[in-house]
Amino acid sequence: MTGEFDIIAKYFAPLSVDCKGAFNLGDDAASLSVPDVVVTKDLLVEGVHFRAKDARSAVAKKALRVNLSDIAAKGARSIGYFLGCVWPSGVKEEAIADFAAGLGEDQELFKIALMGGDTTAHVAKGAPFTVSITMIGTTGSAGMIRRTGAAPGDDVYVSGTIGDAGLGLAALNAEMKFPAAHKAYLTGRYQLPSPRVFLGGALGGHASSSIDVSDGLIADAGHIADQSNVALDIFAEKIPLSEAALAFVKKQDDQNAAIAQLAGYGDDYEILFTAPASRRRSIEMAAQVTKTPVARIGTAVKGKGVRLLDAEDAEIAVDRAGYDHFAA
Amino acid sequence: MTGEFDIIAKYFAPLSVDCKGAFNLGDDAASLSVPDVVVTKDLLVEGVHFRAKDARSAVAKKALRVNLSDIAAKGARSIGYFLGCVWPSGVKEEAIADFAAGLGEDQELFKIALMGGDTTAHVAKGAPFTVSITMIGTTGSAGMIRRTGAAPGDDVYVSGTIGDAGLGLAALNAEMKFPAAHKAYLTGRYQLPSPRVFLGGALGGHASSSIDVSDGLIADAGHIADQSNVALDIFAEKIPLSEAALAFVKKQDDQNAAIAQLAGYGDDYEILFTAPASRRRSIEMAAQVTKTPVARIGTAVKGKGVRLLDAEDAEIAVDRAGYDHFAA
Repeated sequence: MTGEFDIIAKYFAPLSVDCKGAFNLGDDAASLSVPDVVVTKDLLVEGVHFRAKDARSAVAKKALRVNLSDIAAKGARSIGYFLGCVWPSGVKEEAIADFAAGLGEDQELFKIALMGGDTTAHVAKGAPFTVSITMIGTTGSAGMIRRTGAAPGDDVYVSGTIGDAGLGLAALNAEMKFPAAHKAYLTGRYQLPSPRVFLGGALGGHASSSIDVSDGLIADAGHIADQSNVALDIFAEKIPLSEAALAFVKKQDDQNAAIAQLAGYGDDYEILFTAPASRRRSIEMAAQVTKTPVARIGTAVKGKGVRLLDAEDAEIAVDRAGYDHFAA
Repeated sequence: MTGEFDIIAKYFAPLSVDCKGAFNLGDDAASLSVPDVVVTKDLLVEGVHFRAKDARSAVAKKALRVNLSDIAAKGARSIGYFLGCVWPSGVKEEAIADFAAGLGEDQELFKIALMGGDTTAHVAKGAPFTVSITMIGTTGSAGMIRRTGAAPGDDVYVSGTIGDAGLGLAALNAEMKFPAAHKAYLTGRYQLPSPRVFLGGALGGHASSSIDVSDGLIADAGHIADQSNVALDIFAEKIPLSEAALAFVKKQDDQNAAIAQLAGYGDDYEILFTAPASRRRSIEMAAQVTKTPVARIGTAVKGKGVRLLDAEDAEIAVDRAGYDHFAA
């Protein structure tokens, strides 16, 4: 293994060439001139957010994408990021090279650059690989879309399909079985989310509130409901499902319960948002122009909390807890 | 232990009240309007950058201060930060409360606010507490002071005193013994650095290059030399030493070697900078106005690398390695 400065020069400095103010990672700080900055920061920890055996390039991409998703859900465009890594003690150079290769591929895809950061290594044997990303974005003139703007009468939308990543994780952990093609699709959704960067950029000025689905559809709808002081009614049969998730639902005795289970899973990285009914045409256009599937799944009403409703408008029981890092 | 959202609401949201764009930590991202942004990011890991038994409030302050120091060394003023924490599995609420109290005290002292972040916990038992800070600063019209501007003929300066933190760490690890008063002073310098935030803000437009001393005086001088394409000659007898460090040096057989040892220690968090000889009066004024001790310790010359020179201008051998997180 070469030294810390060599590693930075060899693997990370090349990732910063598109950010002039990163000074080739040769200084203590980066100098940025960004109008209307939006900043988010997410940590990923081995054993919590990804598995020890996941390829380091896949971890790199997941780390970038969960942050890209946050910025997109705010109606902003990501321009670059700061990276903090704590490598396991005795990490092999190939692991670092693979991680940097993953970053490079996604930088190309999402038009972002490395702006700075910090690379260190654990002393404790077996301590988990940890990645911290601070993503910098910029909003258009419409400003950041918050969680607070939903009003009674607004429509509730979600992009893509819901529950795939949770099923994929269950497949990876051998807790569920799927046909090979479905398993490949579902595990892919868990390991490599596709942040809705184009749709996000098109929602500014139209969406009244927005969040990315990371805790789970119901839990994240709950965040919007809480922050906007409204209740959200979500219609189970309107929740968009992939072919693989639909096949899973059809096999269950209680299909409503199965949908509730999918709506409780996290890691979808779709965008859940609300917009006034008067904006339906604009939302359709935004979906069309950005080639992003968007489904209208519910409505905001006066009240508190989130209700998942069946075809007869009866409430379906949901497990609201979501994942809590501090649960006993 | 209460849940993740309760912890954020109870301990961290109150730290964000002075940053309007942090939305009380109730959104996915923060919205900032900062001219001439300077950003730095540093990770601290238990067992690497601090000890398992250090008070969490002290860890909080150290994490903020090493980042405040980076921003100050760039001639900028810190305004706020993003925080990422990975708590040990089974962390007690008192530890989180103590950590948040430490952040609060230093926010008050340094006039900064929490802007956002991410709080999570290890699943693996015994995995080390990890803190990631992304500090946001702003420069005056003079812009960011880089590592690249030193020119032959420039003076080399350093603030405060050098080597105290390294001696303090040795005392904490019982590798060295000191009289009680000296030990208290030295360990304090290690555990609670005092970033030179006022001096840093006064150096813009005067210093030609600047860095904070974290890797060690010689190693960090080396970064300036490399990036500025000059050599730095540093005069051992000019290096400012505290009373405690001076007492240590006087006890050694080879006093030049002892000074070289101090100049190799890290964690001083002083500012090392260069300025043209024509700016001597300005530098004196900056030191005076900001009540910061500043010593002129060397000169930049044509060439490469750093030489530590004795009173007869003979080179003193130094261990240049510094700490390398990836050394075998």
